[in-house]
Amino acid sequence: MITDLEKILSSNVKKMKRSPIRELLKLTARPNIISFAGGLPSPQSFPVDDLKQVMQEVMETESALALQYGTTEGDNLLRTMLVNRANAAGMNISLENLIVTTASQQGLDLIAKILFDPGNTAIVGLPSYLGGLSAFNSYGAELHGVPLDEHGEDPNIMEDKIKTLTAKGKKPKFIYIIPDFQNPAGITMPEWRRREIIALAHKYDILILEDSPYRELRYEGKHQRTIYELDGTGQVVLLGTFSKIFCPGFRIGWVIGHPEILDRIVMGKQSTDLCSPAFTQRVAGRYMEKGLLDKNIRHIVSIYREKQKDMLAAMEEYMPKCVTWTHPQGGLFMMATCPEHMDMTELLKQAILEEEVAYVAGESFYCDGSGKNTMRINFSYETIEKNRIGMQRLGRFLAKHVDKCN
Amino acid sequence: MITDLEKILSSNVKKMKRSPIRELLKLTARPNIISFAGGLPSPQSFPVDDLKQVMQEVMETESALALQYGTTEGDNLLRTMLVNRANAAGMNISLENLIVTTASQQGLDLIAKILFDPGNTAIVGLPSYLGGLSAFNSYGAELHGVPLDEHGEDPNIMEDKIKTLTAKGKKPKFIYIIPDFQNPAGITMPEWRRREIIALAHKYDILILEDSPYRELRYEGKHQRTIYELDGTGQVVLLGTFSKIFCPGFRIGWVIGHPEILDRIVMGKQSTDLCSPAFTQRVAGRYMEKGLLDKNIRHIVSIYREKQKDMLAAMEEYMPKCVTWTHPQGGLFMMATCPEHMDMTELLKQAILEEEVAYVAGESFYCDGSGKNTMRINFSYETIEKNRIGMQRLGRFLAKHVDKCN
Repeated sequence: MITDLEKILSSNVKKMKRSPIRELLKLTARPNIISFAGGLPSPQSFPVDDLKQVMQEVMETESALALQYGTTEGDNLLRTMLVNRANAAGMNISLENLIVTTASQQGLDLIAKILFDPGNTAIVGLPSYLGGLSAFNSYGAELHGVPLDEHGEDPNIMEDKIKTLTAKGKKPKFIYIIPDFQNPAGITMPEWRRREIIALAHKYDILILEDSPYRELRYEGKHQRTIYELDGTGQVVLLGTFSKIFCPGFRIGWVIGHPEILDRIVMGKQSTDLCSPAFTQRVAGRYMEKGLLDKNIRHIVSIYREKQKDMLAAMEEYMPKCVTWTHPQGGLFMMATCPEHMDMTELLKQAILEEEVAYVAGESFYCDGSGKNTMRINFSYETIEKNRIGMQRLGRFLAKHVDKCN
Repeated sequence: MITDLEKILSSNVKKMKRSPIRELLKLTARPNIISFAGGLPSPQSFPVDDLKQVMQEVMETESALALQYGTTEGDNLLRTMLVNRANAAGMNISLENLIVTTASQQGLDLIAKILFDPGNTAIVGLPSYLGGLSAFNSYGAELHGVPLDEHGEDPNIMEDKIKTLTAKGKKPKFIYIIPDFQNPAGITMPEWRRREIIALAHKYDILILEDSPYRELRYEGKHQRTIYELDGTGQVVLLGTFSKIFCPGFRIGWVIGHPEILDRIVMGKQSTDLCSPAFTQRVAGRYMEKGLLDKNIRHIVSIYREKQKDMLAAMEEYMPKCVTWTHPQGGLFMMATCPEHMDMTELLKQAILEEEVAYVAGESFYCDGSGKNTMRINFSYETIEKNRIGMQRLGRFLAKHVDKCN
């Protein structure tokens, strides 16, 4: 082995941290642990029988294609199905506006790859998705946080940030927004707020990166149009994924955007993994062609609606009074806020060891290191019964560590 | 859309070029074209029936795991199978020495990600694998080429390069070697040459990146031990893949190396795609567990041995006298050298349009822009009959463009 590995590492990797969620998944693999960490869909949401059938058909009729290398842009059948589905929902895109990625995490990585030189900036939410933050960080980006109010990122604070950064010669490369059931906050942006953000993007000539993995998992309220659709000028890059509505084990996501931007992403992808798995793409394409995806989404929504309702009731029952939490209209998470004095990062290991319950400490979602008294609670993975027992444990644990409730 | 996309792109992406091979694949998708470009395995090499069976079993017995997110390191069953197989072949590794990647292109990308800051250097072969070069380039690496003799990279020239670069404060991060049936040259390094390269790596305290996708496709001669095994100190990172011996459409590769290095690669992978597809990994693991991989490799070797033999005979018959080519003991390619005056990059489009035959111009494999009179010929993808017709076309085309044969 060489004498000093640390010495030859790239500057960016030296700054990288292991994802606390991924690392936690290992700890929580022990039996008896009830985990509200992770963002895993329920195995009940996987369309096992339909998938088995489609796989058989693909293997019988088109294995030579499904087992071979594919194009970097993605399988044309799948792309066509995704374009048709987007258009049926009111978008107006064509094949040249959509490419397939190895799930949407790769979309985040590739956007970062084509835009960031070390020290470049971007605007993110306070809080925002950890996987996005770490993808951007891995290219040396400097992230500037804008706090969320009940409707999402505050446009006034955002405009101030953009002005200040631009004045310093550090104009942000993009504004990163998760508009639907935000991870981790659970907030959904109403259309007027989306339009305010778009207006800012136009005024300052900045891209918007819209990440919407939970969009189709709505349990109440009215569907909102995507920022991509509202913009209509190609200034928005929209990331989608099958991980929450079909199965994460296939690693299929997509990027919708202006062809000039996609062209650069495709170049980045060529050197990154050549192409995403042809097999899972072809199976997913045939699965969609049969209209099975919509059936599955209806099924998942009905499961998760119940789970969320029950989890909210359990939180009401077991959480100490001075803990508050969001009531999202969809998605997979609630975000809870504890009294200021509590450090949920420090308490996590204790919660796992003392009460066999896990959450994600909110701090990792805050690019400025704040949010120490918050945590993200997932309700999709465990059964309703386990969610309830877990919440009882968590409530008991928090009660022990809350100094005072005002 | 923003006013000037070009302006906000990262320095690295500005330098990126679309892969000529990938772009060519589009042109050669037209009917009647016989393509020796690409590195596609034959669809005959895919174990369709066995795979169908294994997929069914996985879907019936472990779908909850196979369709879910997995760990970044990879599926433990698959990793165990790969470790056992490597050890059965004489290696001495354990689980902590192996992680799974989204095919070996991702291994190349991640190694580059954890090591390169812009302007950092690496030693590569003249010629060397295009996908490796473009992965390294995409992080701003400066590549320095060492010519190959009949046994691989010349160690004397390599040592000079290392000395010169080190004296300039630009010590190479690693030496990139494809020791078995090199892509594109087809050359296999004998053990003594491998040891010479290892000695250099030890003397100058430099990592070796060993990339060996074709290793198991040997049609004659004696199996060589990996550089990783010969080194034995963990100074070598070894990349493997299923793309040529199982199916590329699953996108499964692996990295074997020192745990400290793998730890950094895993961090890089977390932000890149979280994890590789759980489904294809689990199917591959079960497939190996049943001993089917070895059966498939024997089958592939027997098909390709025939194809290569016939292709070499066709080259003998149809190539103009002043064209020479390599006679590899395995792998998927021959490399042909034309008279110096010929520019195979310029002639390629003409070859496709005039004679409906395609190859990869060798220039893209030379980081210094040389090798214009060379081309890479693949013999695995087309049928023996088509290979023969294609070679006849290529021979006729070259004969028209050869000024004089001495």
